[in-house]
Amino acid sequence: MASKSHNVVSLIRKKRDGEALTRDEITFLIRQYSKDELPDYQMSAFLMAAFLNHLNEDEASALTEAMLHSGEVLDLSDIQGIKVDKHSTGGVGDKLSLILAPIVASYDVPVPMISGRGLGHTGGTLDKLESIPGFTVDVSLERYRQILSKCRMVMAGQTEEVAPADKRLYALRDVTATVESIPLIAGSIMSKKLAEGIDALVLDVKFGSGAFMKKHKDAQKLAETLVAIGEDFGKETVAYLTNMNQPLGYKIGNWLEVEESIEALHGDGPDDVMEVTHTLAGTMIKLGGRAKTVEEGIEMSKEAVANGQAFEKWLELTEEQGGDTRVLKDLDSYPTARYQFEFEAPQSGYLNRMDAYKIGVASLELGAGRKTKEDNIDPAAGIELKYKTGASVKKGETLAVGFTNNEKAIETAIDVLKDAFSINETSSEQLPMITHRVDGKGIHKISNKS
Amino acid sequence: MASKSHNVVSLIRKKRDGEALTRDEITFLIRQYSKDELPDYQMSAFLMAAFLNHLNEDEASALTEAMLHSGEVLDLSDIQGIKVDKHSTGGVGDKLSLILAPIVASYDVPVPMISGRGLGHTGGTLDKLESIPGFTVDVSLERYRQILSKCRMVMAGQTEEVAPADKRLYALRDVTATVESIPLIAGSIMSKKLAEGIDALVLDVKFGSGAFMKKHKDAQKLAETLVAIGEDFGKETVAYLTNMNQPLGYKIGNWLEVEESIEALHGDGPDDVMEVTHTLAGTMIKLGGRAKTVEEGIEMSKEAVANGQAFEKWLELTEEQGGDTRVLKDLDSYPTARYQFEFEAPQSGYLNRMDAYKIGVASLELGAGRKTKEDNIDPAAGIELKYKTGASVKKGETLAVGFTNNEKAIETAIDVLKDAFSINETSSEQLPMITHRVDGKGIHKISNKS
Repeated sequence: MASKSHNVVSLIRKKRDGEALTRDEITFLIRQYSKDELPDYQMSAFLMAAFLNHLNEDEASALTEAMLHSGEVLDLSDIQGIKVDKHSTGGVGDKLSLILAPIVASYDVPVPMISGRGLGHTGGTLDKLESIPGFTVDVSLERYRQILSKCRMVMAGQTEEVAPADKRLYALRDVTATVESIPLIAGSIMSKKLAEGIDALVLDVKFGSGAFMKKHKDAQKLAETLVAIGEDFGKETVAYLTNMNQPLGYKIGNWLEVEESIEALHGDGPDDVMEVTHTLAGTMIKLGGRAKTVEEGIEMSKEAVANGQAFEKWLELTEEQGGDTRVLKDLDSYPTARYQFEFEAPQSGYLNRMDAYKIGVASLELGAGRKTKEDNIDPAAGIELKYKTGASVKKGETLAVGFTNNEKAIETAIDVLKDAFSINETSSEQLPMITHRVDGKGIHKISNKS
Repeated sequence: MASKSHNVVSLIRKKRDGEALTRDEITFLIRQYSKDELPDYQMSAFLMAAFLNHLNEDEASALTEAMLHSGEVLDLSDIQGIKVDKHSTGGVGDKLSLILAPIVASYDVPVPMISGRGLGHTGGTLDKLESIPGFTVDVSLERYRQILSKCRMVMAGQTEEVAPADKRLYALRDVTATVESIPLIAGSIMSKKLAEGIDALVLDVKFGSGAFMKKHKDAQKLAETLVAIGEDFGKETVAYLTNMNQPLGYKIGNWLEVEESIEALHGDGPDDVMEVTHTLAGTMIKLGGRAKTVEEGIEMSKEAVANGQAFEKWLELTEEQGGDTRVLKDLDSYPTARYQFEFEAPQSGYLNRMDAYKIGVASLELGAGRKTKEDNIDPAAGIELKYKTGASVKKGETLAVGFTNNEKAIETAIDVLKDAFSINETSSEQLPMITHRVDGKGIHKISNKS
């Protein structure tokens, strides 16, 4: 990387005028910003210009690299095996990490998973893990290596040392309306994932009402950008475009999702959850070098559930990270929420739509998520759905059960739920769960299995 | 103005998404910024969004109003007469204010003129005035009123109290590559002009190599925006689109331009200078209610030069503002620059082009302008041209004479001048000096008088 000096205003102007910046120029901007030698007001002008005039894949890759090198990059080369992680762009009821990580690790593929917390209507893996009594996600780097080496998996929170430039940039984007930019999002995701020291990555890029990207074409563009960056860094990267119009599975909320993931590890997972889980896990097993094809990997994933090895792995990991395995073995022993309520079908007909975003918001209202960073989470709060879309329901039947320890939240949650379900006389076509796979060779349509 | 509260991020997002903000919303942003309750990084993101997605005339007007009311707005209602000012977007050799202000004031039309300093290749009226020994442009508000009341004109610098939000915003635009936006420029100009307490305004909007707006269509758009804002505030506003491809007149530099303006007041002004001067002055006399038509105003303007009343007015004003009138009466008594050099025609042919920008830069190099705000100005420095474009010249003839007190600057200035003149075997068509008039009724083509 050359240390050539650049005039910041001229670089902002270049992007403003729709020109592409060189890798050198992007690196310069991020470095200066990291060193506090480029003020926020210049960076935010640049970000808005980048938002409106876009960054190409090369610029996004340079941005990723600069943010990656703004902090510590883990070197896991002393740990045997091809290290594969999975990242999801976030959805409602998305407990897949809790199911697929033990599946993959049970085949000796190391899964070094660094996750985030939930904010807004989407849950975060860390919050779900912390609903297990004693489970700690705050581990030192030393412990992180130990756990990964021993269990072949680890689930931890991001440390301050990982991609600090991304953290500052994200905070600035948040207050300057420059969040929803595909290359900026891709750079943010990939800088953090690459800092983990992974060798390969599987991405679950969601589209639909409950996803960050509502439109399929935006999700596709994001998937393509993420894969292009991954490949640029020499890491085999595969992304799947998955449906987030309705929540994943039936259960939304932190402990509720742990519960459903344990059921899934016992072979009782919902169809949609298992379809996506096996596809992602199968791909991870393939990238980890333990299967010749993704199809073989998927079969191995199913086998790991059927023979119980994935559940065993999950117990091992939970114990290693201080969690109480008794509640995992006896789900009913978990303290339930003080208040429960049923939400009934206002009419008979076909349940054509369950708005994932609104159900996520209702769950948030009940205490399952945070409205601000400072909010506490109620681990038992959430929503259990009784149907998936496409079902035929009768007026008065329970569509959903709400759980909360905050009685006052019930009314608000019900108000939100009222708009979340669409019941019609005729049934409408349901979208497939996985529409496309994006990898280094391009985009491939996935045939609908349902 | 309602005091409704708005979420800043949502307003930035709205502009980012190409929507128009309401007057209320624009006012809110500027007010918060003025009160230091909106940080620079949010304002710069907004400015970049406004730059790329544009502000419409209503938004530009709201911006103007908010900046205007961020500071003191002069009330000159106790001074008799329709107060008319003139503003130029800045050019090379533009000494028009020094000629037209006394012409207009000599007909008892009050001209409350607040001007700026030069920066870069364009000169500033204040710097020209200060080349007159003793002339002071820093006058109190009290003195400002006194001078205007007595002389029917006053020429002063902007005080800190005028449109402070514009000052802060401009400084931010300067470092975030958001200067060259027509609505932002228009808002900046008009907030300062309207703060003067004027009743009507004539604008000289320049296009061409020496102008801020290189392209005619940009200058036209700026003129239209300026007029729309003026009309929105109930001030009769007329703009002329004038040619700034070659410098105005023959003399560039502070004292040199004072000299040429005195020659013009004696009836010896260059044709181009007088054509624009009489058009602008005639329009001001008309707007000031002293002529029925612009044509009549133009005749009156010529008369004021011919009978010497404008020069007398200029002497009166100079004396009132502390200037030494002796040098104005005896131009040769002014101390000339220590060094002079001649720039010769490298070949024979038609002088088809004299690049106003480059000649401005050469003059700046000689000491007539500032490269940074801190630079001192050499009042005697500058360039005197010997021809206007279209002339037939012979190889070795003097095209320009340079004046400076800094011997070291000569070589650099000559290097710049080498690229400033184009001499060809065949003559090319010359653009008219004034192409269009823009007023509340629309845009009107001006017939070429030459």
